[in-house]
Amino acid sequence: MIRADLLVTDVAEVATLAAGAVPRRGTAMGELGLVRDAAIAVAGGRIAWIGPARRRSREVRLRSGGRAVSAGGGAVVPGFVDAHTHVLFAGDRAFELPLKVAGASYAEIARRGGGLYATVRATRAASDRTLLAETAARIRRMARHGTTTVEVKSGYALDVPGELRLLRLIPRLAGEVGLAVVPTFLGAHAVPPEHAGRPDAYIDRLVRLALPTIARERLARFCDVFCEPGFFSPAQSERLLRAALELGLGAKVHAEEFVRSGGARLAARLGATSADHLLASTAGDRRALAVAGVTAVLLPLTAYTSSPAGRIPGREMVDAGVAVALGTDCSPNSWVESMPLVLAHAVHRGRMTPSEALTAATVNAAHAIGLPGVGTLQAGGSADFSVFPFASVEQLGYRFDALPEAVYRQGNPVFSRRLRE
Amino acid sequence: MIRADLLVTDVAEVATLAAGAVPRRGTAMGELGLVRDAAIAVAGGRIAWIGPARRRSREVRLRSGGRAVSAGGGAVVPGFVDAHTHVLFAGDRAFELPLKVAGASYAEIARRGGGLYATVRATRAASDRTLLAETAARIRRMARHGTTTVEVKSGYALDVPGELRLLRLIPRLAGEVGLAVVPTFLGAHAVPPEHAGRPDAYIDRLVRLALPTIARERLARFCDVFCEPGFFSPAQSERLLRAALELGLGAKVHAEEFVRSGGARLAARLGATSADHLLASTAGDRRALAVAGVTAVLLPLTAYTSSPAGRIPGREMVDAGVAVALGTDCSPNSWVESMPLVLAHAVHRGRMTPSEALTAATVNAAHAIGLPGVGTLQAGGSADFSVFPFASVEQLGYRFDALPEAVYRQGNPVFSRRLRE
Repeated sequence: MIRADLLVTDVAEVATLAAGAVPRRGTAMGELGLVRDAAIAVAGGRIAWIGPARRRSREVRLRSGGRAVSAGGGAVVPGFVDAHTHVLFAGDRAFELPLKVAGASYAEIARRGGGLYATVRATRAASDRTLLAETAARIRRMARHGTTTVEVKSGYALDVPGELRLLRLIPRLAGEVGLAVVPTFLGAHAVPPEHAGRPDAYIDRLVRLALPTIARERLARFCDVFCEPGFFSPAQSERLLRAALELGLGAKVHAEEFVRSGGARLAARLGATSADHLLASTAGDRRALAVAGVTAVLLPLTAYTSSPAGRIPGREMVDAGVAVALGTDCSPNSWVESMPLVLAHAVHRGRMTPSEALTAATVNAAHAIGLPGVGTLQAGGSADFSVFPFASVEQLGYRFDALPEAVYRQGNPVFSRRLRE
Repeated sequence: MIRADLLVTDVAEVATLAAGAVPRRGTAMGELGLVRDAAIAVAGGRIAWIGPARRRSREVRLRSGGRAVSAGGGAVVPGFVDAHTHVLFAGDRAFELPLKVAGASYAEIARRGGGLYATVRATRAASDRTLLAETAARIRRMARHGTTTVEVKSGYALDVPGELRLLRLIPRLAGEVGLAVVPTFLGAHAVPPEHAGRPDAYIDRLVRLALPTIARERLARFCDVFCEPGFFSPAQSERLLRAALELGLGAKVHAEEFVRSGGARLAARLGATSADHLLASTAGDRRALAVAGVTAVLLPLTAYTSSPAGRIPGREMVDAGVAVALGTDCSPNSWVESMPLVLAHAVHRGRMTPSEALTAATVNAAHAIGLPGVGTLQAGGSADFSVFPFASVEQLGYRFDALPEAVYRQGNPVFSRRLRE
């Protein structure tokens, strides 16, 4: 008999994603491992048991002092994993919107104090306390939308001490918000103003001065690079990522966002963990990613804000056998905190089924940030899950703004509205 | 000295929209009537005073037993007015999405049990209790996103007794959710299956059998019609709307959504209160709407789900001097409850400034549903407002998924997260 600290009853449907990250041989991205009329038992912050409600009383007992809550006939899904964010920054860029609406070009917006370098200036100038407070508030709101694991990139300092400062803030952030946070070093987010026209010199500094410290102090799990004309070339990106891989970091590439520049092929060649954006990728790129087992992280809201049609190659990636993951890409350029909104865009502008989008937002997203087992609900795994106020998980990806009633991380509520005890 | 029941302090910025619905001579749609470092006093469910915090203690006193709450340095805006919804229905159509993703045509989806008539079948079959429960849950979630006034259309019964049943449910709905609800008769949402090929006969029935009862029992404020090829012609629409106008109802038209069919000109000719959708409208249509003083109700999420680019003619309407309002168009075809999401789409796909979008979602939306004074915050007006966790209202339209911390209707919290007392 299993003893539970927490028992969630009256679950109309739970998506366990128990098959693990897909695609793998014999598994489709739409297989959710559904259990209907279910109950979920948690012990010590981990899933202790999950199965049909009718078997629960024979197999699980609530320990004295434990809590039972009703999901009220709702659906339970693993906590969302947001596989790509630039959430660590100061300030905002709302002031750009009237300029954009009036037809100002990116160059003109930059001249008037906007663009990525505006956020670099604000982030460099911000105190640790401000950065932590603003970023923690964003991540807490992400949790209100059902997210329990967040990848967080550095990248708005663009100098070695500043980037190290950002990475050192991330564990404090994680402690403050109570979610799982995975740090990624994106010193190569753009060429800093101080190195304008000399990207190689900046890559040199990152390789010589930043990466060794990051590896030694384990400040990041991944090294990422913006591989795009005007940012870093495939050769520059490769030099940085090879150095990172040698030091034991995983590799990620911002690839083919605006034009096809070779980032996806580079990711495949290096065995990167993920290639991200991919709006301008080709069928050949998709084959290369599939063969190399690189996860495609698609970012539908960024496509929405930056491209006229807002299409993402979701269907194409799935059909090519590429593992697809999703992220908000939350940044001052596209301020999005809600993974349910990301799922809806993936369905409507990526032609993914709701089930595929849910896989992409949970188990596959965890796979894309090096967390096997996360994004699933199985005995032994972390009890990270959300309760939604509808009976079927297929409502995610259909409703644009589904809000969970409660969100649990390691068996504790990080957000809860009114589950009955 | 004013005596307040409720005092909201520490308001970084409040948008009063005190100039009223725009455009009017000398007023631009982006003028928000901002008060910075403000306080708001409520008495008897109405705004009693609103002004700079430094003047508050001289002019307002909290009556004994009254409450003071801090907005925590957040921004306050009028409760959103959702000017166009089909929120009164049963069931959902999530099952259509995998078919759509696979490329099924509208006709094929209908053959497989989907489309508008699927919702008609579900709504006809649903009990009053089910319809009330499902719809009230949707409207309550709308309030969590900051909406305090909702237009609700009938239209999923498509027979006279069924449509009257839906209209009679609306006041009960309003009582249940505690928001302001404005009922619109949309018996002419589509040609019912029983009248296939005979739309004139159905319009006859609506004119003879439905409208007199609706007018006598005051079941609806407006009569609306879907004027589009395959639905109702301009001549059929005109016949219905003239009969409604003669009985004292206001007129609305679903116009130029898919193709240009003359609905906007009809709205202008009849002096309708609003023309809605308007994706295929022309410059001439816009001039006609401006001259006739018809409000254009734009529905960005429906444009997003139904058209490749998802563009709405926001900028074009504002520049032509048309009053623009916004709505979710929440329906089983495009399930959207969040007005902040609608604002963001209006900015990104309608080239409206955030200030114009806020005007369109408050005072202009109220104007579009016959509620002058609503959607503003002024002494004497209903105390319907939301507190957002950021210092400037310009964040609305910029952040995709802004969630309010608290929402008040007639001075009472309909949703509140954690305002400090």
